[in-house]
Amino acid sequence: MKIFVLGGDGFCGWPTSLHLSARGHDVIIIDNLSRRKIDIELGIESLTPIRPLHDRLKVWGSISGKTIEHHNIDIAENYHRLFVLIKEYRPDVVIHFAEQRAAPYSMKSSWHKRYTVNNNINATNNLMVSLIAAGLNTHVVHLGTMGVYGYNSAGIVIPEGYLSVKVESPGNDLVEREILYPQSAGSVYHMTKTLDQLIFDYYNRNDKVRVTDLHQGIVWGTQTEQTKLDERLINRFDYDGDYGTVLNRFLMQAAVGHPLTVHGNGGQCRAFIHICDTIACIELAIDTPPASGERVCIRNQATETHHVRDLSSLVSHMTGAKISYIPTPRNEALENDLVLENKGFIQLGLKPTRLSEGLAGEIYDIARKYAHRCDLSKIKCVSYWNEERRKAAKEAIGEV
Amino acid sequence: MKIFVLGGDGFCGWPTSLHLSARGHDVIIIDNLSRRKIDIELGIESLTPIRPLHDRLKVWGSISGKTIEHHNIDIAENYHRLFVLIKEYRPDVVIHFAEQRAAPYSMKSSWHKRYTVNNNINATNNLMVSLIAAGLNTHVVHLGTMGVYGYNSAGIVIPEGYLSVKVESPGNDLVEREILYPQSAGSVYHMTKTLDQLIFDYYNRNDKVRVTDLHQGIVWGTQTEQTKLDERLINRFDYDGDYGTVLNRFLMQAAVGHPLTVHGNGGQCRAFIHICDTIACIELAIDTPPASGERVCIRNQATETHHVRDLSSLVSHMTGAKISYIPTPRNEALENDLVLENKGFIQLGLKPTRLSEGLAGEIYDIARKYAHRCDLSKIKCVSYWNEERRKAAKEAIGEV
Repeated sequence: MKIFVLGGDGFCGWPTSLHLSARGHDVIIIDNLSRRKIDIELGIESLTPIRPLHDRLKVWGSISGKTIEHHNIDIAENYHRLFVLIKEYRPDVVIHFAEQRAAPYSMKSSWHKRYTVNNNINATNNLMVSLIAAGLNTHVVHLGTMGVYGYNSAGIVIPEGYLSVKVESPGNDLVEREILYPQSAGSVYHMTKTLDQLIFDYYNRNDKVRVTDLHQGIVWGTQTEQTKLDERLINRFDYDGDYGTVLNRFLMQAAVGHPLTVHGNGGQCRAFIHICDTIACIELAIDTPPASGERVCIRNQATETHHVRDLSSLVSHMTGAKISYIPTPRNEALENDLVLENKGFIQLGLKPTRLSEGLAGEIYDIARKYAHRCDLSKIKCVSYWNEERRKAAKEAIGEV
Repeated sequence: MKIFVLGGDGFCGWPTSLHLSARGHDVIIIDNLSRRKIDIELGIESLTPIRPLHDRLKVWGSISGKTIEHHNIDIAENYHRLFVLIKEYRPDVVIHFAEQRAAPYSMKSSWHKRYTVNNNINATNNLMVSLIAAGLNTHVVHLGTMGVYGYNSAGIVIPEGYLSVKVESPGNDLVEREILYPQSAGSVYHMTKTLDQLIFDYYNRNDKVRVTDLHQGIVWGTQTEQTKLDERLINRFDYDGDYGTVLNRFLMQAAVGHPLTVHGNGGQCRAFIHICDTIACIELAIDTPPASGERVCIRNQATETHHVRDLSSLVSHMTGAKISYIPTPRNEALENDLVLENKGFIQLGLKPTRLSEGLAGEIYDIARKYAHRCDLSKIKCVSYWNEERRKAAKEAIGEV
């Protein structure tokens, strides 16, 4: 199949592109390299030594004998180039990773809130509009987030996208409706993914665009079968306060002898998935597209749930690292439960990589190996959700 | 109070600005004159002879002795100027009309879809971000649309924003939740208002921004107490296929001897409100702001519902106009019922202007008086919701 990977140079996009290329698909990466430019803005580098995309693609070509094209297009800003490319190549599938994906980054300042909304919403809308204008029946696979459900789901099992509810009718009977799960975003970033859902829903109903929306948990792990083949293909590993995800941050903190930074008392329950399973899920999604006219297919892309405090204990136990409890910079419940439905991908054949199996490898192969590249000053999360949280953080360290 | 009216030169914004100024508020209009520029794009003029905003404001000053300032700012594009103005003036209330508001216009082409999304979403997000950055507790009053509810509400009374539902819990008990009414937009324009809802919900929860969101029905009528004072203050009256609303279109069609253009067989049920009631509702909303920390206040701003076929019969009966049934350019149900809750404003004291009372005046004072200004070639709606609808329309007139 001819597959566009929008955001194909990123943390999920790069290993997805390699995997699909290895499987024989014709992969075209569209990426404006914004993630690398944000590294420059933040004065940070991936813990792993990632190479320029041009080099990565050359190495992949020489190892695999396969070509992946790259087009540097800002799809949020430059609709016309996106449209022309889509019209010319007529992709069977477009995988849409081309969004600013860090909640803390989206909360850094007014500019960052505005950038995240403008970039993510126009990227998604431009993609939909261009496919309709080109008259194609392309299948769009989009990376959503478990965060669209919010964490206020106490007493409800989070379904795969659609919730069955009963509503009182004028005659006082209960009528049944299946609705998009009511959204409740926890950051500006998460909010953009709830907007994406409504955008997909609309174009799906009006223009029959085929969409699969994958609500992914927090990704951990770094390498995949292909990125391991050569160090020049290595995937990025973010550990900083803005882009690092909780488990990767713990692993790196343990490797450099920094206490594990737990927000609040770690009572937050979150969903997780290994990067290899992310790629497997995306391939399964490509292989099982919704039919034309079928509603948006929503799947939960997460394999296990854990409380943050249990993860910190686990990593502490394996490495001897201390744990440091700090005020959360986020506007979030400090304790929550999370029960989610994720049968969809399991029934399609996904064999989850368990945290209990993969963690040790991550510690030795990535965190310790590249610990010398860590900039300790970037560990702290300095993006606060609102003024209240900023003050609480300052007070905790005696700055107020 | 110090009140910003974003979009204060438009059909709802202009009479709102005059009314609030007459009531003694300090009104500042922020408007980039986009609606007038769209008239130029479409080669159309308001049926009523509206004057340049500069003239309007001068006339208002000489009649009322009151000053309304105007700042020409594109708030979707120029965040900085919006922020500086908000920071300097510290408005008590911002009324947000600054969105592209025609469903057919939003469907005209790829460009129009993209413009509507980019303009409306960035306008709303920029407003929220600027108020938070300025540290103000300003009350935002936003004009939404009944269209956020969609027209798939058979068997449910449409509540004022929030729907009480019962959901099965893991223990098989039904747990009750109050949720934002599940959205189901009928056009790209309506979609932007559903996105607005999620944006308001987010900033309301994260930053305690006080928001009232008014889901308005289709407005009819033209003049208000203030716009009648001098012909140079007259409000706009759109009758073209893109911006004209159904009832105003029928009135003008009758006045020029054109058959009333009914989409399908007119089985669509819609909610209506007179422009004077729009202004009254906005004043009531300003006078009853939600408390700080209270959720977004949502009110239905509509006073009666009618099937389109009944409206066409009514106008036909009053004027002798013929009725012409044409294929709908919209992707919509051809028959629907609509039962909605609108107690909120009635309890606050709104005295609705009934269609049965106001219609004759509209016919004589506006439609017939300015019939000579009508461009008959602009009556037809030429914006199709999708390829299917375009083909159906062409087939009906033998063009395929």
